[in-house]
Amino acid sequence: MSKIPVLEIFGPTIQGEGMVIGKKTMFVRTAGCDYSCSWCDSAFTWDGSAKEEIVQMTAEEVLNCLQEVGGERFSHVTISGGNPALLKNLDELINKLKENAIEVALETQGSRWQDWFVDIDDLTISPKPPSSTMITNFDILDDIILKLKDHHRITSTSLKVVIFNEDDFQYAKNIAKRYPEVPLYLQVGNRDVHGEDRVNLTSTLLDQYEQLIDRVVRDEELNDIRVLPQLHTLVWGNKRGV
Amino acid sequence: MSKIPVLEIFGPTIQGEGMVIGKKTMFVRTAGCDYSCSWCDSAFTWDGSAKEEIVQMTAEEVLNCLQEVGGERFSHVTISGGNPALLKNLDELINKLKENAIEVALETQGSRWQDWFVDIDDLTISPKPPSSTMITNFDILDDIILKLKDHHRITSTSLKVVIFNEDDFQYAKNIAKRYPEVPLYLQVGNRDVHGEDRVNLTSTLLDQYEQLIDRVVRDEELNDIRVLPQLHTLVWGNKRGV
Ligand code: SF4
Ligand code: SF4
Repeated sequence: MSKIPVLEIFGPTIQGEGMVIGKKTMFVRTAGCDYSCSWCDSAFTWDGSAKEEIVQMTAEEVLNCLQEVGGERFSHVTISGGNPALLKNLDELINKLKENAIEVALETQGSRWQDWFVDIDDLTISPKPPSSTMITNFDILDDIILKLKDHHRITSTSLKVVIFNEDDFQYAKNIAKRYPEVPLYLQVGNRDVHGEDRVNLTSTLLDQYEQLIDRVVRDEELNDIRVLPQLHTLVWGNKRGV
Repeated sequence: MSKIPVLEIFGPTIQGEGMVIGKKTMFVRTAGCDYSCSWCDSAFTWDGSAKEEIVQMTAEEVLNCLQEVGGERFSHVTISGGNPALLKNLDELINKLKENAIEVALETQGSRWQDWFVDIDDLTISPKPPSSTMITNFDILDDIILKLKDHHRITSTSLKVVIFNEDDFQYAKNIAKRYPEVPLYLQVGNRDVHGEDRVNLTSTLLDQYEQLIDRVVRDEELNDIRVLPQLHTLVWGNKRGV
C-alpha cells in the first residue's frame, strides 16, 4: 500500500467551521500545499517548519492511529491540510474509513480534481479570495463543480470563502453568481493566527463576525447564504490539536 | 383568510442556532405556547407581558410586512414562537411564502403534529429536557418522527436539545438512541436570559460550550452528533429583534 504524508491526527473534537460546523469528528491533517496564502493558519503544513513531524503512513496505519487516539468515540473523520487534494492515493484511506462505517469530510481550495471527491460525505471547496494573494484558476474550479454536479454530489458539497476585506466580499459575490446551485458559506477571516490572548481574540472575532453579518444583511444579491465564525478559534484561540 | 397571532417580524439577520446556523433569514415570531419552560428565552410570547404587541395578521399581511421590512434582501424565513405548531392555519402563510420562492424554516418542541410540517424546508423539533420542568409526551413525538419519515422528510428535519445539566445530557442521549436516523444538535443552555453584560455573557457561554464539547467528546454513545452555541447570543447578548 502507498503512503500518505501525515502531520497531525487528533480528536475527537468539534468541527469549528463550514457545512458540518459543530460535528463531532477526528482530524487527519496532511502535509503539503500548492498555495501559500498570506494568512494561512496552517502554514506549518507547507513552509518547512514542521518537516520533522511529517510521518509517511499507509491508510491502514492512519486508521489504526485514529482508533488508538479516538477509541470508540468517533464515527466521522475530517481530512484537512495543506491541500489533501494533492494526494491521488487518498482513495485508499477514504475507502478504508467507509468500510468501517466512518463518515468522511474533506477541505480543499479547489485547485485540483481527484476522482475520490465523489466519495466524500462533506466536501468543502474553499477558493481563496484576493487577500490571500493567490489567483483562482476558474477553468479548474468550473470543471470541479461540473464534475460534482454530473455525479449528483452537490448535496454533499459546499463552497466556503474566507472574508478579510471588501475585495474578498466581491469575490464571494462572484462565486455565488457563478455557482448558484452550490451552498455558499462565508467565514470571518482570522487576522491574528499567532495571537495568544484568547479573550481579546474572541472579542475581535465576534466584532468582525457582526460586521460581516451586517455587510451580508444589507446586500440584495447575497440572500441564499450562510455566514459563520470559526467556533474552535472562539473557544480555544489559536491552539493546535483541539 | 384566517389570522395568525404575530408578535415580531424582523430581519434579515442570521439564524443563530441549529440545523441552518448562520443562514441569512427573516424571522416571524408567533404568540402562544402550550409549554412554560423554566428557562424560556421567549416567555413574552406566552406569559402575557407582551399581550398588547400581538397583531392578528392574514398570511398576505405577514408577507407584505416581511417585504416592507426586508425589501429584496431575503429568500428565507424562519417561523418561531412560542409554539407555531399550535396554529393549524399556518399552511396559508407557508404556501404563500413558497409561491414567492421563499424557503421556510420552523421550530417547535414537538408537542403537536400539523400536516404542514411536511412543507417546511428546515424543520427543527426541539423536545425539552428535564431542566425545563416540562414532561415530553413520547407517544406524540414518536408519531411526529414516524410521520416525517413516512413522508421522506427526514433530510429536512433535525432534533435539537438544549443542555443545562447532566440530566439534560442523559435525556439527549435517550433522544439520540430513540431516533437514530434524525440529525441531532445539542445546544448550550443560556442560564442568563436577561443579563445585559455582553462580554461576561459571551465568556460564560463559551466556557459552557467548551464543557459541553468536552462531555460529548468523552462519550462513546454520542458520536453522530453536532454541538453548537447560540451565535446571536454570542454576538448580540440577550437583545430582542436581531
Ligand atoms: S490553501 Fe489552505 S493550507 Fe494552502 S496555503 Fe492556503 S490556507 Fe494554507
Ligand atoms: S417551548 Fe419554547 S417558547 Fe414554549 S415555553 Fe418552552 S422554550 Fe418557551
